[in-house]
Amino acid sequence: MGREDLSTPLDSALIASRRDEAQAWFKDLRDRICAAFEAIEDDYCAAHPEQGTPGRFEQKQWNRPEGGGGVMSVMHGQVFEKVGVNISTVHGEFSPEFRGQIPGTSEDPSFWASGISLVAHMRNPFVPAVHMNTRYLNAGGDAGKRWFGGGADLTPIIPNDDDIKDFHQELETTCGRHHPDYYKDFKAWCDDYFYLKHRDEPRGAGGIFYDYLDAGDYDGEFAFTRDVGEAFLTVYPQLVRRRMETPYTDQDRHHQLVRRGRYVEFNLLYDRGTTFGLKTGGNVEAILMSMPPEVRWP
Amino acid sequence: MGREDLSTPLDSALIASRRDEAQAWFKDLRDRICAAFEAIEDDYCAAHPEQGTPGRFEQKQWNRPEGGGGVMSVMHGQVFEKVGVNISTVHGEFSPEFRGQIPGTSEDPSFWASGISLVAHMRNPFVPAVHMNTRYLNAGGDAGKRWFGGGADLTPIIPNDDDIKDFHQELETTCGRHHPDYYKDFKAWCDDYFYLKHRDEPRGAGGIFYDYLDAGDYDGEFAFTRDVGEAFLTVYPQLVRRRMETPYTDQDRHHQLVRRGRYVEFNLLYDRGTTFGLKTGGNVEAILMSMPPEVRWP
Repeated sequence: MGREDLSTPLDSALIASRRDEAQAWFKDLRDRICAAFEAIEDDYCAAHPEQGTPGRFEQKQWNRPEGGGGVMSVMHGQVFEKVGVNISTVHGEFSPEFRGQIPGTSEDPSFWASGISLVAHMRNPFVPAVHMNTRYLNAGGDAGKRWFGGGADLTPIIPNDDDIKDFHQELETTCGRHHPDYYKDFKAWCDDYFYLKHRDEPRGAGGIFYDYLDAGDYDGEFAFTRDVGEAFLTVYPQLVRRRMETPYTDQDRHHQLVRRGRYVEFNLLYDRGTTFGLKTGGNVEAILMSMPPEVRWP
Repeated sequence: MGREDLSTPLDSALIASRRDEAQAWFKDLRDRICAAFEAIEDDYCAAHPEQGTPGRFEQKQWNRPEGGGGVMSVMHGQVFEKVGVNISTVHGEFSPEFRGQIPGTSEDPSFWASGISLVAHMRNPFVPAVHMNTRYLNAGGDAGKRWFGGGADLTPIIPNDDDIKDFHQELETTCGRHHPDYYKDFKAWCDDYFYLKHRDEPRGAGGIFYDYLDAGDYDGEFAFTRDVGEAFLTVYPQLVRRRMETPYTDQDRHHQLVRRGRYVEFNLLYDRGTTFGLKTGGNVEAILMSMPPEVRWP
């Protein structure tokens, strides 16, 4: 995990192989997450056959006219009311209005981006909603910049301290294996980012958020990004299984639908991925896969 | 209705009296609209007592910490699933980021604004949703600019050509009494404004939209703005009464809830009043009164 000499440009073959391995990782993580979620559906429905048949992910491929595309996987199940997992690898050029906002693109506006993005809205209001996203960005061509970004954050509807603690603990342990400051810094970034300014309230219980991770240690930063995915895959299914049987009332459900309105407000008013994607001709269906299936503003 | 000499500043007393009469008009219009909508609730429930009791508007006053405030009136009825009518009169100073975007504020950032804003989401998917808003703005102090703005637009869920035609006809007739170009220009502005770029689709069936109406004929422009309110009050209750008895299916209702998602997307991604209000410390409850009561992104 030695530091690279940042002043020496990488050769094209190395750049390409890093892109390939990042892209392969996002796909592999997608497969394992979907399998874990379907297993939850199986176990829940085996115990509650009257609730219906276990949900299954349906995949849909999409292409981006300007270059690249992705696959969205959506499941409408008995535990997962709606969960979308999108993997995408896109490339093109930033439009003039976005150059300068993105590192490395002032001279060469080309970009390449691959990533996985997941949002789960759960039937049971005692099971927290969740978001996870990791990505590898290349901007400005072979002589430009390359970095990882991502994170995971929990949005409890009826908060439970144990769930929040366990979620953060897993992320803290993961971060701690990579850098002593990662958890502290990325937790603060998450709190700052997932905040509804107009309501002066956080979106949920936080997690971690990082971007532009590019300190010259590609191997270490890719390993960290993989571990964020692993941490998510370890802890979130545990929380789902822990709470999916909790009895709830109509009032709990109503509260859940109202709280989901905050999720919509955040995503459409503030979320950079959503607003950036919608304003740059991204795939609407893939981007808005994160919208909750049912929402109320009473 | 003579044109004023725009180079001569108005005296403060005249400015104040115009503000007073505009503000009084918005309140009067609010009262008449609410009465007309409650009468619809009464008539519907008299014919269908099994549906429940007729809805009634509930008023809630709100204050803006920086100056002014308003009253929101919300009704959850049997015909009107959720309708909000907000009147407000606010004043203060534009923050640096908004100066320059608003006429007349580059030297003096003070503003005064009064208006009425209405959004109705209906139970029956055959009754179109509707939006109406008119306002009187003063910006840049006594030496600054003053103008009217507003409009009305229809969002059918299951479109009916007669409804769309009658809505537009009423607006066209109204506009035609004031200026030969108003309907053509303001219809085009409405089509342009209420457009979901990310989906490449209009929000609804259009109507009229105007802003910065300030050609030096205050009396005529105020009369036009009053007439826009009158046109709305004439035509929309007719459309509601025409369609509120139409039988509909679960599929129609589902379609309605999905279409409402487009309304949310528009308001949070594009609507200037909403995004401007939320980013300038406006009253969140009053601004988001326009959100549909129940929405689906399946």
